[in-house]
Amino acid sequence: MGGDRLALARMLTQIENQTAEGIDGLNALFPYTGRAHLVGITGAPGTGKSTLVNALARTLRKQTPGDGSQGEPARRVGIIAVDPSSPFTGGAILGDRVRMNDLAGDPGIFIRSMASRGSLGGLARTTAGVAQALDAAGYGLILIETVGAGQAEVDIARLAHTTIVIEAPGLGDDIQAIKAGILEIADILVINKADRPGVEITERALRSMLELAHPVKREFMHHGKVEKMSDHPDAPAAGTAWIPPILRTIATECEGIDSLAARIDEHYRYLESSGELRDRDCERLQTELDTLLQNTLVARWRARIPDEQYREVLQSIVEREMSPWEGVLALVDGNQAHSRFGHPG
Amino acid sequence: MGGDRLALARMLTQIENQTAEGIDGLNALFPYTGRAHLVGITGAPGTGKSTLVNALARTLRKQTPGDGSQGEPARRVGIIAVDPSSPFTGGAILGDRVRMNDLAGDPGIFIRSMASRGSLGGLARTTAGVAQALDAAGYGLILIETVGAGQAEVDIARLAHTTIVIEAPGLGDDIQAIKAGILEIADILVINKADRPGVEITERALRSMLELAHPVKREFMHHGKVEKMSDHPDAPAAGTAWIPPILRTIATECEGIDSLAARIDEHYRYLESSGELRDRDCERLQTELDTLLQNTLVARWRARIPDEQYREVLQSIVEREMSPWEGVLALVDGNQAHSRFGHPG
Repeated sequence: MGGDRLALARMLTQIENQTAEGIDGLNALFPYTGRAHLVGITGAPGTGKSTLVNALARTLRKQTPGDGSQGEPARRVGIIAVDPSSPFTGGAILGDRVRMNDLAGDPGIFIRSMASRGSLGGLARTTAGVAQALDAAGYGLILIETVGAGQAEVDIARLAHTTIVIEAPGLGDDIQAIKAGILEIADILVINKADRPGVEITERALRSMLELAHPVKREFMHHGKVEKMSDHPDAPAAGTAWIPPILRTIATECEGIDSLAARIDEHYRYLESSGELRDRDCERLQTELDTLLQNTLVARWRARIPDEQYREVLQSIVEREMSPWEGVLALVDGNQAHSRFGHPG
Repeated sequence: MGGDRLALARMLTQIENQTAEGIDGLNALFPYTGRAHLVGITGAPGTGKSTLVNALARTLRKQTPGDGSQGEPARRVGIIAVDPSSPFTGGAILGDRVRMNDLAGDPGIFIRSMASRGSLGGLARTTAGVAQALDAAGYGLILIETVGAGQAEVDIARLAHTTIVIEAPGLGDDIQAIKAGILEIADILVINKADRPGVEITERALRSMLELAHPVKREFMHHGKVEKMSDHPDAPAAGTAWIPPILRTIATECEGIDSLAARIDEHYRYLESSGELRDRDCERLQTELDTLLQNTLVARWRARIPDEQYREVLQSIVEREMSPWEGVLALVDGNQAHSRFGHPG
């Protein structure tokens, strides 16, 4: 087991660094993916998110999955802790250690912390790769934990089948306002630290925001999808929609965690039966394909075009002799008809 | 004047919608850009950002620019209010109206509100276009106002020559923690609502975060730049760095706004004399060129490849017969050697 974990940890590093070995690894393990339930968990600092994720992992390890059939072994749980807010500090590493201590000794839990290393777009991509590796390695439930409300979190949450947004009482209306965007992608809402004063106010606020967000939520989920799967035989019948529940938890006391775990499984069954699971999977893979395509096309083009020519165009733009749009046409068409710039590719 | 404003407003709409007319417009006006001072202003909801931006605009309109030479007309001020947090609501429009009332009657102020329309990457690009149009139209100082701490805000802030981060007392340590990322790109820090209790604590917290952020700030600013301009004759001498000041304001009383305006001008003079102005301009234009190149390459490739072929590959990925990476190679190499898929482009 120890050796497997070490091999997995090494592979994840290769994937994070996008080495040739990492890409080969992803290609090799890809056929074994698509079995895990990916759960995104996001919440601002101060909501007790990490404690909740730990409590949830421990609870999930005590349960049998989905249908509760007896004798089935407990699922292995993977935790990917993503911290895009601080690309500069070693915060992720520190968090990892605290985590490790708390959940140490359970070989069925694997924890990976990731910092952004400067590129947030890249973070969503490498997180997808890390999730695929854990999926292929047999981790049946993967918790992807992100901080806050930015676009990076939304992108990462979109990797997940089930997205959980954590709030806490007394963090103020401002915080809730800033999170309006992420509420719209929430499948389950959790008010953690529910023993604190103000829990009623928070719940009321969430409920009214949810009512506001809900009609557009469905639209949003299908937005940007090049190819809808509405013609698919498993497509959901009209009117069968998931209404995000609002749950109360006290993670430090492990209160409410069982219900949360039950709701997570319930959401997965809903996704399966409605056909959304397949839709989301398809959408996610299409996004991944498009991003990789984009990077590959740009990288190949860049390798063909002489650096000198690129610099000349950039210089003309800086001098305002040429607009960026005109620069693009000069470069791209110059690239197709080499004679125009006199630089054979 | 009214007619000019209407024409400008129409052009901005064309630019926002990225129509052919908008692109032609940007190409035509591009030679007249590069003269405005772009000032990014960001802060969480509750910091009084909009009130501060309005007060600042009014103050700037009463002043002569930079060197304060007499008889020079006051600069025209453009305001671009960007709200990426809520792609779904008409919030930007509403804000625009409140704004309009407050600053109405000054023909030297032009206000434009922008919502994200779903694509945050695209938002930074269209904001750049709108700023260029205002620049070419003679708005000497352009305030780009964004909400919050996400990557979209950081991207938009990078459009600016000068980035101002607004805080307010009593918003809690959590908020400050989440903003660690954006502090690192701040040129001027403002504690608004400085008559509130807790202003000392906020200032101390900001000062210590600033000390933490400062060493990496310089590194960050040059990160991702393909081509450093350190060999440029105007490159800053070692040791001449801008230390972000922390200012206190009460925007509702217009207190501290004069000093803020003075610091903004001071920062511009610093950028000019250190050579950073040219560096940032070059960096910004390169980012714009690269983004446009990327979009153009992908769009052209997409136009060439049969949709059927793309769908087949996506289907194979969904079925786990092919990994996304393998899909990219099949599509890109298949595209170059058409015979492989039997679909001549």
